[in-house]
Amino acid sequence: MELADARRRRADRARQVADLLRREVVGGGFDGGHLPLESALAREFGTSRNTIRDALDLLRDEGLIERCPGVGTTVAAEKFPHGLHRLLGLAETLREHGEVTNEVRAMGLIQPPAAVRGRLHLPPDEPVVYVERLRRLSGLPLSLDLTYLVREVGEPLFDADLVHNDVFVLLERIAGQPLGVAELTIEAVNADAHTAAVLDAPRGAALLMVERLTHLSDGRPVDLEFVRFRGDRLTMRGHLWRNTDDPGQQPGRRARDDR
Amino acid sequence: MELADARRRRADRARQVADLLRREVVGGGFDGGHLPLESALAREFGTSRNTIRDALDLLRDEGLIERCPGVGTTVAAEKFPHGLHRLLGLAETLREHGEVTNEVRAMGLIQPPAAVRGRLHLPPDEPVVYVERLRRLSGLPLSLDLTYLVREVGEPLFDADLVHNDVFVLLERIAGQPLGVAELTIEAVNADAHTAAVLDAPRGAALLMVERLTHLSDGRPVDLEFVRFRGDRLTMRGHLWRNTDDPGQQPGRRARDDR
Repeated sequence: MELADARRRRADRARQVADLLRREVVGGGFDGGHLPLESALAREFGTSRNTIRDALDLLRDEGLIERCPGVGTTVAAEKFPHGLHRLLGLAETLREHGEVTNEVRAMGLIQPPAAVRGRLHLPPDEPVVYVERLRRLSGLPLSLDLTYLVREVGEPLFDADLVHNDVFVLLERIAGQPLGVAELTIEAVNADAHTAAVLDAPRGAALLMVERLTHLSDGRPVDLEFVRFRGDRLTMRGHLWRNTDDPGQQPGRRARDDR
Repeated sequence: MELADARRRRADRARQVADLLRREVVGGGFDGGHLPLESALAREFGTSRNTIRDALDLLRDEGLIERCPGVGTTVAAEKFPHGLHRLLGLAETLREHGEVTNEVRAMGLIQPPAAVRGRLHLPPDEPVVYVERLRRLSGLPLSLDLTYLVREVGEPLFDADLVHNDVFVLLERIAGQPLGVAELTIEAVNADAHTAAVLDAPRGAALLMVERLTHLSDGRPVDLEFVRFRGDRLTMRGHLWRNTDDPGQQPGRRARDDR
């Protein structure tokens, strides 16, 4: 029993340390990508080297760091920040982090199932444009996007450069008006075998799954998307306000929105 | 090669169907929790029964549905919506869905590591209050929360009812002012063995990992949290605007914020 308690305490401590280190790893907080020695980390966190090793194991299992005997611990992967401040396409939000390219895996006019028709407010028998893209940042697979578009704004995409452009930017050009609001849900799911293969991730890897229904600024819903982001490559960042009606918050909110 | 192509096409189709069904499953769209027969789904989605079976397998693997011979396919789990509209505690946001109770796994005054001290803007040697809670909704484990609080607002929590109250609500009472803004990051991670055991989830289960730094309305950062939500029990919901400065959007935004 005492042994089990000690084990539990050590695992709890390792999780605490891992969470604090994760942020520095993900945020590029370690100079040259090298983490401090285990002994230094043990001092910093006031814990044993065994606990530090457990914490580093957790981050290694997440694919964030690598541990090599003789070399030490180094940052293995970068997580890119996707803004939650405003509605942005992937290339727009990751502009500073590399070039987004899109592999179009499928594209065509289809008869939508009722679930799509309902959300896009379409009459029966009205076809939609379906686009499936594997999206890469600097050549590395980042997300798999399944997109249903109303015909009016979707059909002109057949002649557009989807490889180098966000659909959002193209839609605004086609519609001659800006996008308005998007309804968003965010979930965490495990990658099934086929999705894992497409995203070049291990089977079961944690994915950020985003469902997004985007409207034009005139209110029409035009774009229903199901996006699977690799969890080890992307983090969503935003701000939440306690009092959304407080006028004192609004200027601060806008200023932050624009960062 | 043709066989591989056919397999890929069928897997791609199954994913499309699963995504559309997922929303209806999660949103309670099926009467009495019973999904239609495979043959009806095949008609609805214009695809083969084999593809429907593959799609249902994907949702079963996510823990969302159960398939019993003779009984059919039923919804196995409810996903609860966590608002992304404003800064809310768990009990506040899930009020309509059940009772949130919190098991305090650890609580104490600790010397914070530099990473915590820096984010909470604390001088050296200033201790913080650490609270670790397993949070349940209607008795089911939902999240594991690691919380670091500045001493001034954290110490009074030792005498508070943490089992039945959100920390947010207690903090506002203690500080005598509302909370202000929180910086938020959202990631998807796989559950390590120990965390999985605490959350009663399979090892490797996808978790929504939220890091949140919350300020009082006077601007002071007081509450740094690391929250792991079970991915199969929670979905985050919000709205994003394309143009955050468009005054025409603001009234709509507020109205939606208050839903």
